[in-house]
Amino acid sequence: MSTRKLPHIHQRRIEPAGKRLKFELLDLEFSNGATRTYSRMRTHGLGSVIIVPMQDDDTVLLAREYACGLHHYELGLPKGRLEEGESILDAANREMKEEIGYGAHELLELKDLSLAPGYMTHVTHVVLARKLYAEKLEGDEPEELDVMPWPIDDLDSLVSRPDCTEGRSIAALYIARDYIRNHPIDE
Amino acid sequence: MSTRKLPHIHQRRIEPAGKRLKFELLDLEFSNGATRTYSRMRTHGLGSVIIVPMQDDDTVLLAREYACGLHHYELGLPKGRLEEGESILDAANREMKEEIGYGAHELLELKDLSLAPGYMTHVTHVVLARKLYAEKLEGDEPEELDVMPWPIDDLDSLVSRPDCTEGRSIAALYIARDYIRNHPIDE
Repeated sequence: MSTRKLPHIHQRRIEPAGKRLKFELLDLEFSNGATRTYSRMRTHGLGSVIIVPMQDDDTVLLAREYACGLHHYELGLPKGRLEEGESILDAANREMKEEIGYGAHELLELKDLSLAPGYMTHVTHVVLARKLYAEKLEGDEPEELDVMPWPIDDLDSLVSRPDCTEGRSIAALYIARDYIRNHPIDE
Repeated sequence: MSTRKLPHIHQRRIEPAGKRLKFELLDLEFSNGATRTYSRMRTHGLGSVIIVPMQDDDTVLLAREYACGLHHYELGLPKGRLEEGESILDAANREMKEEIGYGAHELLELKDLSLAPGYMTHVTHVVLARKLYAEKLEGDEPEELDVMPWPIDDLDSLVSRPDCTEGRSIAALYIARDYIRNHPIDE
């Protein structure tokens, strides 16, 4: 496999898109001389976290939350956006407390996932949370989320459910499962 | 776990956002009486496909493509948008031919993945492709993509690479790996 030289960015410009976001247009020249203008969506730059909260090494705690994009209740992992000045692990612990009512004594970054790297700059940090303790923080959710313990070794039947759809959530669960198999908790 | 009644949508309205997309604003009332206005991004409604092309039951063919969102070469699965009037499996076969130079005699839908179900309507269909044959179609790519065979049983080292980041791609690979283990090819 060749090691390609990255396209040269000749120019970049911003195109506003409504109140919520903007596009960045890049005039690119590829290493073979081909030129294209690509656009990418820029949301706020802080990124987000998605947490794999393990009740024990066999059981992950899933949350069921209304997902407006698909107008259904989605079964997946707790997640949310980083706030200004907040570290990744602090954001993970806060989101867990808000969404499922637990903090964790052990938090570990496993992987950075992109959402749609072809046209979005967004990055989500996957955090494995173990040694949980009960603590509830008030979030901005309109209703309490249902929390659903799930055997981490049974991802097949989880993924076969029509209410478990999110790519990042499913990827994070498989990555965490394989990590836990190789790194059981030290207790 | 309770079975929640879906929020009632009192009103929906469209807010244009630049040339490329629009937001749909939903005035919601949750079953506990809480009200919120949520917005979701609407892209074109046809959705996309992501293909897991198996050279044999041990080897998946990955593509390396420039990803403008992260300005790097991303190692992942071939994918693309459905065209008007095209079936999911036809789109999968076309994208494979354009991006990696293969068609498949056996195509199977494994799963529908969402991108960000909280605020996007987008759906990606995961298609497993087996019994490949060489056929190249001209796509709109600015350069040939590098094709990289990868052992499907070694997803751990793939996922540990910083150039393999896309949640949907990683989720599709794990789902396909587990499917193939339970359903070896009939040859």
